[in-house]
Amino acid sequence: MFRMVDIIEKKRNGEMLSKEEITFFVNGYTDESIPDYQASAFLMAVYFKGMTAEEQGYLTMAMVESGDQIDLSAIEGIKVDKHSTGGVGDTTTLILVPLVAACGVPVAKMSGRGLGHTGGTLDKLEAIEGFHIELTEEQFVQQVNDLKLAVIGQSGNLTPADKKLYALRDVTATVDSIPLIASSIMSKKIAAGADAIVLDVKTGEGAFMKTKEDAIALAESMVAIGKQVGRNTMAVISDMSQPLGFAIGNSLEVIEAIETLKGEGPEDLTELCLVLGSKMIVAGGKAASIDEARTMLKAVITDGSALELFGKLIEAQGGNAKVIHDTTLLPSAKYQIEVPSLTSGYVTKMEADDIGVAAMLLGAGRATKEDEIDFAVGIVLKKKIGDAVQVGEPLAIIHSNLENVERSITLIQQHIFIEKQQVESPRLIGEMITG
Amino acid sequence: MFRMVDIIEKKRNGEMLSKEEITFFVNGYTDESIPDYQASAFLMAVYFKGMTAEEQGYLTMAMVESGDQIDLSAIEGIKVDKHSTGGVGDTTTLILVPLVAACGVPVAKMSGRGLGHTGGTLDKLEAIEGFHIELTEEQFVQQVNDLKLAVIGQSGNLTPADKKLYALRDVTATVDSIPLIASSIMSKKIAAGADAIVLDVKTGEGAFMKTKEDAIALAESMVAIGKQVGRNTMAVISDMSQPLGFAIGNSLEVIEAIETLKGEGPEDLTELCLVLGSKMIVAGGKAASIDEARTMLKAVITDGSALELFGKLIEAQGGNAKVIHDTTLLPSAKYQIEVPSLTSGYVTKMEADDIGVAAMLLGAGRATKEDEIDFAVGIVLKKKIGDAVQVGEPLAIIHSNLENVERSITLIQQHIFIEKQQVESPRLIGEMITG
Repeated sequence: MFRMVDIIEKKRNGEMLSKEEITFFVNGYTDESIPDYQASAFLMAVYFKGMTAEEQGYLTMAMVESGDQIDLSAIEGIKVDKHSTGGVGDTTTLILVPLVAACGVPVAKMSGRGLGHTGGTLDKLEAIEGFHIELTEEQFVQQVNDLKLAVIGQSGNLTPADKKLYALRDVTATVDSIPLIASSIMSKKIAAGADAIVLDVKTGEGAFMKTKEDAIALAESMVAIGKQVGRNTMAVISDMSQPLGFAIGNSLEVIEAIETLKGEGPEDLTELCLVLGSKMIVAGGKAASIDEARTMLKAVITDGSALELFGKLIEAQGGNAKVIHDTTLLPSAKYQIEVPSLTSGYVTKMEADDIGVAAMLLGAGRATKEDEIDFAVGIVLKKKIGDAVQVGEPLAIIHSNLENVERSITLIQQHIFIEKQQVESPRLIGEMITG
Repeated sequence: MFRMVDIIEKKRNGEMLSKEEITFFVNGYTDESIPDYQASAFLMAVYFKGMTAEEQGYLTMAMVESGDQIDLSAIEGIKVDKHSTGGVGDTTTLILVPLVAACGVPVAKMSGRGLGHTGGTLDKLEAIEGFHIELTEEQFVQQVNDLKLAVIGQSGNLTPADKKLYALRDVTATVDSIPLIASSIMSKKIAAGADAIVLDVKTGEGAFMKTKEDAIALAESMVAIGKQVGRNTMAVISDMSQPLGFAIGNSLEVIEAIETLKGEGPEDLTELCLVLGSKMIVAGGKAASIDEARTMLKAVITDGSALELFGKLIEAQGGNAKVIHDTTLLPSAKYQIEVPSLTSGYVTKMEADDIGVAAMLLGAGRATKEDEIDFAVGIVLKKKIGDAVQVGEPLAIIHSNLENVERSITLIQQHIFIEKQQVESPRLIGEMITG
């Protein structure tokens, strides 16, 4: 029998823990035989001393096994999941689900709501009238076998250890520990039934990982965990120094997703979807190379089959599928207000986080779990880094149901930097990390 | 208003905390508005990032102010307290109290029991028939004014924050943090009313601080805290690579103390008492120099006045003062059993901790708070490091009320190392640290 105090001391001294020790901790913390105060001291020791790939693998699997696991074995084929580490205006999931499914990879997507500048994938889909995300596990599996795609909310008691540990980390200054972040993300994907995982690790002003070094370290950790626990895992580092695409807001992002599925989306968002999508298709065994996969993805955009499949997804889950051809059916805001530039020059920097706050203030996101989202509102950017801008020209259009949006206007004007000297647009796709 | 999570993060990032932040933590933890799990994460951050002298001063005073403080202002003169960081066979307090008081420094000693190989100072005194340590604060002050000395148990609600934090550190692997140890010791001395503090920081096998570097760091921390909070504080590093003196056990140590007060004690114990005692007398303003103080101490040994004063202390607190002239009045054990050396050579090393365990197994100390101490039992060493020994010659005499003492014999034989090559006796007195 282990004693938690010895496990804390061992980690504090920088020693490696065994699978049995880590499992003892996770199980004991879940069943409350190990108290919060020992768990938090342990987490702080991990913050300072880190964890090896082996230890992170043990932690991940112990968290997976702490609760229910979704059984996707009745779905034919390799189930590939994707995870983005979060940013501003990130519409990739909405696009990738039909795009990849249209190429034959089954997409059984379990998604979340969460807090943030805009809603999560579920909220965005619920901007479509009638769309519901409550399917039983049987319906979910059936729909993926029939249509190749389904999106549901997190159900059941998935990774309760991770939930409990995350809540503790949040109040003990142990959130930003790479081994803890990596294990948390990987445990959720594995419990949701993924055979293979494609990670989109964002870096820059609008991302959780502000520096490229941290983003790479997190990506490497997750890929190493995947290797440890036998899940084919790869990661792409992508830029979040400015919002992705132009739209920030639920309805607005659905429109942007539809445009992208038509081949008319923003260049950066389209490119990121092609990069992540080709990795998913190769991981799913539907193409032998990235190039082949990319060709397949472009084909299902060009021939309209990806968009059609998005329509089928909407229809299957109770939504009005006509939106894919008529986006005016989506909720729209009462006011459209221009945010004029106060000066002339070139956009050199955007503080994406603050622009996200401007959207949240309009009602596009949640600050607390209880907040209600206004699907219609948000921001559509008119300029991105490297673009020229004249004084008075709009930097963005605010979509709002409130007349007074002064605070959001000011935030946008303050956090889009305009200078005389032009800078290059930041490189969207960075390092690729594979096991 | 502060948030504890921000204070944890600040310390985690290695920043210095303000007086207000540290006081917020100590008060909040004491009144339970700050939960254990935040306190333990904070303590682990302190373990890794340390604390400046200023921070340690703030922590010390916040712990002092968390509970009652003994008011010794009615006692004339500078109240000097002494603290030893604990070891095996450490009889210094018993000797120093009458020795220093006989030189005119008032000694209002508040002492503890605690866990360990033998009892604390209170247990040792209670080995004297009738001795009691329950005095009201008024009686305590009165006795010190009348006789210059009194010894009582810890009463009232002294440093509750320290007690609570210590209990938490014990189960979260955050005990061995020098700033936390230093603040804990200093807070107890200050709450007990000390104007000046002489510290005896032990180092070596039998001490809490195993290395000289750690002992010096702890001593420097405490002296720096003393400076911060306006208490004249100095420290002596002393050797605990072997037990101090020869006796380990309550009654046996009282006998050794009496012998030392007669000028017939072990050389090392006598020397340490002279070193610490002279510092106390200088700190108490009763001598201008260490040399002068040392001469005074030797005089009160030679003329018998220190021993007489020990008798008065015993009498005042209900004990049989005749013991000072007839130590057979103290409890004695049924059996005296020789521990023979298994080989010939020289004593090169003693693992004092394990010899302490041998004494505890006889009943001389407490493993848990509930254990009862047998005052009569213990060990009297016959050899110390550097001594020659023949096979079969006694290394020690066990005083026991149990007939079967095989485990204690084996422990002593295993942990006194005998080799062919003679080594020098370790240097007793190391660095002196003053503010």
